[in-house]
Amino acid sequence: MKFSTKVEKCGLSPMRKFHPYAVAAQEKGKKIYHLNIGQPDIETPKAYFDAVKHFDQPVLEYAPSPGMPVLIEAIRGYYAKLNMHFAPEDILITNGGSEALQIAMNCILDDGDEILIPEPFYPNYNTMVCTCGASIHPIPTKPEEGYHYADRKKIEAEINEHTRAIMCTNPGNPTGTVLTPEEMRMMVDIAKEHGLFIIGDEAYREFVYAGEPLQSLGEFEDAAENVIVIDTVSKRFSACGARIGCLISRNKELMAHAMKYAQCRLCVPTIDQVASAALYDVGPAYFAAVRDEYKRRRDTVMRKLQEIPGVVCECPKGAFYAMAALPVDDAEKFQIWLLEHFDDHGDTVMFAPGGGFYATPGKGINEIRIAYVLKQADLERAMDLLALGIQAYNNR
Amino acid sequence: MKFSTKVEKCGLSPMRKFHPYAVAAQEKGKKIYHLNIGQPDIETPKAYFDAVKHFDQPVLEYAPSPGMPVLIEAIRGYYAKLNMHFAPEDILITNGGSEALQIAMNCILDDGDEILIPEPFYPNYNTMVCTCGASIHPIPTKPEEGYHYADRKKIEAEINEHTRAIMCTNPGNPTGTVLTPEEMRMMVDIAKEHGLFIIGDEAYREFVYAGEPLQSLGEFEDAAENVIVIDTVSKRFSACGARIGCLISRNKELMAHAMKYAQCRLCVPTIDQVASAALYDVGPAYFAAVRDEYKRRRDTVMRKLQEIPGVVCECPKGAFYAMAALPVDDAEKFQIWLLEHFDDHGDTVMFAPGGGFYATPGKGINEIRIAYVLKQADLERAMDLLALGIQAYNNR
Repeated sequence: MKFSTKVEKCGLSPMRKFHPYAVAAQEKGKKIYHLNIGQPDIETPKAYFDAVKHFDQPVLEYAPSPGMPVLIEAIRGYYAKLNMHFAPEDILITNGGSEALQIAMNCILDDGDEILIPEPFYPNYNTMVCTCGASIHPIPTKPEEGYHYADRKKIEAEINEHTRAIMCTNPGNPTGTVLTPEEMRMMVDIAKEHGLFIIGDEAYREFVYAGEPLQSLGEFEDAAENVIVIDTVSKRFSACGARIGCLISRNKELMAHAMKYAQCRLCVPTIDQVASAALYDVGPAYFAAVRDEYKRRRDTVMRKLQEIPGVVCECPKGAFYAMAALPVDDAEKFQIWLLEHFDDHGDTVMFAPGGGFYATPGKGINEIRIAYVLKQADLERAMDLLALGIQAYNNR
Repeated sequence: MKFSTKVEKCGLSPMRKFHPYAVAAQEKGKKIYHLNIGQPDIETPKAYFDAVKHFDQPVLEYAPSPGMPVLIEAIRGYYAKLNMHFAPEDILITNGGSEALQIAMNCILDDGDEILIPEPFYPNYNTMVCTCGASIHPIPTKPEEGYHYADRKKIEAEINEHTRAIMCTNPGNPTGTVLTPEEMRMMVDIAKEHGLFIIGDEAYREFVYAGEPLQSLGEFEDAAENVIVIDTVSKRFSACGARIGCLISRNKELMAHAMKYAQCRLCVPTIDQVASAALYDVGPAYFAAVRDEYKRRRDTVMRKLQEIPGVVCECPKGAFYAMAALPVDDAEKFQIWLLEHFDDHGDTVMFAPGGGFYATPGKGINEIRIAYVLKQADLERAMDLLALGIQAYNNR
């Protein structure tokens, strides 16, 4: 049987590759501390479950294809408080930020097209771009420069006749890099000058740790044709299993094309939309508490990393990830060794090896992504295991 | 700004085209009887809402990408009762049957490929196929033959070097056509002999009205490489807003490719999966009652249609749709006229004009799809309005 050449070019998630080794380690009785996945342990606000419990329609009907008005209005209200004013038709409710990204890319990328993405990047972009027949053109960065990419010369050097868009994951996953307002302005200007879309994947918008105001590409009203914002309740409200996100743009032609996809899949789940609307009633105290909790964890990770000789890691400014270069030959080999041959009092640790976050072959080979989604004591133990592991691996 | 040539070729839903006319009619105070949409009015089983209310995890976490084991097991159990035995890895949970179709098509259709689909067909197939860069190659049918398509000669005449798959919507939407077991065997044989996938879109499996046992392409274990089954809780349990469906196939390579898509969009909503699993505990009495209700409605529609001179409509054997040729020049013009210029005591009626269900230009122009999803009294009234409308339209 013949399959699509596009899907044949795609791979499975690089994070899943180590799952069989993890299963084998657990079967041997090892306890694994997970720094490898971005599933927060923060409780979902009760407002979500209350709304779910109070849903009382006798027929669970289709929702409208663009999304339920109650949720669209809640999102408009959230943005209005950040001084961004969107019309209802600028917002399309999607199955998580993931579907918003898929729809956006399917609307703007054709066979042979390129999208500029700073590397390292969120690995699922690979499948999203590849299944459009397009390819990722990486913007190179360096661990010792904190994975900084907002440099006009560096970016313009990568633009060619195939370039259609720039992806701006801000705050960054896996790097935690956060753009300054001036850098965002400059990124938008590049998009405008070169006639490109600029996609702001802003899933981690609430997670910035230097007290700076929350920023969004949606603020740049002069670039209404260029800017696409991707948003989601997943991380903001620790509601990953709701699968509620949205695609936001003032580009009317883009939104008309996106509606074709939206109608084709009919709608997004009704109860999750109603419950997600209730999340937006959660006040700023919730965000502040969550932000403080993650900041403490980030500081723990950074303190522990600095104690390990040979580690390169600039302090991440946002999201809940840190990308670090380790003093090991190969992070994938090191991960497998940690699962197969290492333990400290029966414990070992998992992270996400860096290679899967790069498009350029061979890059990121000694880097890892740490997701600091564990409670303080577990995080300290996990980081100690990492340090002990590096020492034992290099002395083996 | 440049958009994907694939999305530019797609259109909006043909069912939505009449929405502005409906809004205008309602603003004038007209009451509209809706025979145009497939949203059932049957109550969703209480088991769904009970499961929703009892969900008590403090963190709404991501579900596994292939789906939650509790739901996969419930679906396996349902099929086992129909004497079809699937391994857990043969079943991928999706965002409704729609996503299952999108994933299947993206895995098997490449630029320039063709999929054979009997016309008239479910219009969303257009966008699904078109965004893969492929095209629908229609298998022609006739209203006076009850839209029968299961004819080896007719189908083989349409197969060429671009053909990759046959779509078999059974029971049919919009036609209500139901294949016999012999016809299903023959369709599967054609797929095997020509090395094609055969997709069974079986959303309406429970809705067959002649007392025949429930059939599925999944029964043909000798065609494990060819058969893909699309299923959903939407119609079976009147739970369209759950957006829970699945892709089923014993073709391991196909399922491996499908998993790439599944991982890329992370997962399907957690609470809807848990609640949908509970639906599968609903007993055969529920299905029997629902089936009887729809059968009564179908009989009403057929009785009423037969009273209208000049209507061509073979009695549909399944689903909850009837496709009929009307004695009017153009069903779209007739629909707009019904909304703008017709009423009987302030009432008018909507259906789905037939043209949007055909790939061949000009076909279906005097046909309509009737969705019999209204309670008995409303359905009688809606059909009377249709009869009065035809008379008034042709005498205008």
